[in-house]
Amino acid sequence: MKEQFEKFITDLQNSICNEIELLDGEAKFKEDVWTREGGGGGFTRVLANGNIFEKAGVNRSAVHGEVTPALAAQLKTKGSHFFATGISLVIHPLSPMVPTAHANFRYFELYDEKKNKIDSWFGGGADLTPYYLFEEDAIHFHKTFKVACDQFDSSFYPKFKLQCDDYFNNTHRNNERRGVGGIFYDYLRSNEKQNEEFLYQFSEVCGHAFTKAYLPIVERTKSLPYGEEQIRWHELRRGRYVEFNLIHDRGTIFGLKSNGRTESILMSLPPRVRFDYDDKPNAGSREEELIKVLKDPKEWCN
Amino acid sequence: MKEQFEKFITDLQNSICNEIELLDGEAKFKEDVWTREGGGGGFTRVLANGNIFEKAGVNRSAVHGEVTPALAAQLKTKGSHFFATGISLVIHPLSPMVPTAHANFRYFELYDEKKNKIDSWFGGGADLTPYYLFEEDAIHFHKTFKVACDQFDSSFYPKFKLQCDDYFNNTHRNNERRGVGGIFYDYLRSNEKQNEEFLYQFSEVCGHAFTKAYLPIVERTKSLPYGEEQIRWHELRRGRYVEFNLIHDRGTIFGLKSNGRTESILMSLPPRVRFDYDDKPNAGSREEELIKVLKDPKEWCN
Repeated sequence: MKEQFEKFITDLQNSICNEIELLDGEAKFKEDVWTREGGGGGFTRVLANGNIFEKAGVNRSAVHGEVTPALAAQLKTKGSHFFATGISLVIHPLSPMVPTAHANFRYFELYDEKKNKIDSWFGGGADLTPYYLFEEDAIHFHKTFKVACDQFDSSFYPKFKLQCDDYFNNTHRNNERRGVGGIFYDYLRSNEKQNEEFLYQFSEVCGHAFTKAYLPIVERTKSLPYGEEQIRWHELRRGRYVEFNLIHDRGTIFGLKSNGRTESILMSLPPRVRFDYDDKPNAGSREEELIKVLKDPKEWCN
Repeated sequence: MKEQFEKFITDLQNSICNEIELLDGEAKFKEDVWTREGGGGGFTRVLANGNIFEKAGVNRSAVHGEVTPALAAQLKTKGSHFFATGISLVIHPLSPMVPTAHANFRYFELYDEKKNKIDSWFGGGADLTPYYLFEEDAIHFHKTFKVACDQFDSSFYPKFKLQCDDYFNNTHRNNERRGVGGIFYDYLRSNEKQNEEFLYQFSEVCGHAFTKAYLPIVERTKSLPYGEEQIRWHELRRGRYVEFNLIHDRGTIFGLKSNGRTESILMSLPPRVRFDYDDKPNAGSREEELIKVLKDPKEWCN
């Protein structure tokens, strides 16, 4: 499974980067290869200052080592050694009219002192962060992942949609979600009905659904007009993205506190950001419309 | 002591806000009065888009209530109820040549179930975050606080200078400090030699030293020329300020996770910020000179 999953994310990294470069038409990804002191390493690809994409990072890594006390506290299970591989990507378009997107697909193995595999699971998901709400985009994004989920288990989409809303939540902002969600799953383990190959296939189908879910939205919104007020709002909302990632995101905080590669972890942060004191959108504005949906997540597939 | 300390920080808030408005010559502070659900409240004053100061926040609060499990985990001591009052301020100038400054002075009391006072202490400090290093400014800032400390105890400055370097440390950036430091102290309790009044006087002298330490630096640097490259560097370095406050600062994280007033806590964040992937200053540049001092803090008073 380790090799199978690594091949999947290698292919996925290539195809996502190719599709983004093609759509952007100008900027190219640059790759940094890095190694981790405790074992393993990764391939970080970042594109900057494109026609459409201001900053996009697609990171693939495979790391292994001892389960440190910090990792043990993070995991909800015990073990002596671990192996983890995954792909993580964040795409920040230049235009305030084009949403940010994030996705992550990972596989984890845990071993006892004798290096016997004692546990393994899959995790992942994808979510959309618009700055101006276009309902058709949220519907398209969710429907694409619902179709992917439904091929495997009809309980997956409703469960993982809810988990996504629960996870990407700025609790310190009165439960304002980071965006309009998508799907989020973790600790997805094989059982009598769903073996490892089944869960792997599910990850693969979700991974390859990402560009189908996101890029048509970019195409549709990339030429919409905007001005200074929209740019300011974009930067303010990106501030909330920073707040979520640095205050609440388990992966980010764990990575930074456990000697991960800081630049690869923080490639997720948006390039230009504003933090203004107590900014409130006008009643009845497009900006307020977004906040309402973030505070009270909707069902996008009925 | 509660009343005495509250009077001190009320006066200090007024005098600092007055001096900043006077120097800026344009922008004025606006005050928000807020109450806390668990007990108490505060007075948040924020100034924005001035001639010299892009964003400045001076917050005063007095809160009380039950010691929650989250608070108990944060404190290194036990109790049933608490009282805390303090002033906290962060000043972000517009020009990259003018450093950011932060200061905080607070007093804490702890009670048992019968509301008997069982513990109390003082905390505080002030630190300077330049974007371009001018050694004379770092020396002036540190010397001002050394003079303040030395009036009370010659061991204070060396100890609190070191604690400041240790505390404002972006450990995830190879121990790059947030700035050139200053002083930081916490859990300063009365003892046989230094009673509460002595420690109060120390807090008061440090509090009133702040404008003497900082404003002459603003005066000296406010007219220095700068261009696009300096603005970009300023915004990137402000990104590090955000990283420290959201990832490492105990007060910020505790406040956000314990239902504090988010806008008052996050007024500390700089207004315009950049996060670029893997930016490295050129060898021998003014930018690299700053990083070297942040990674290897200097003694500024010999």
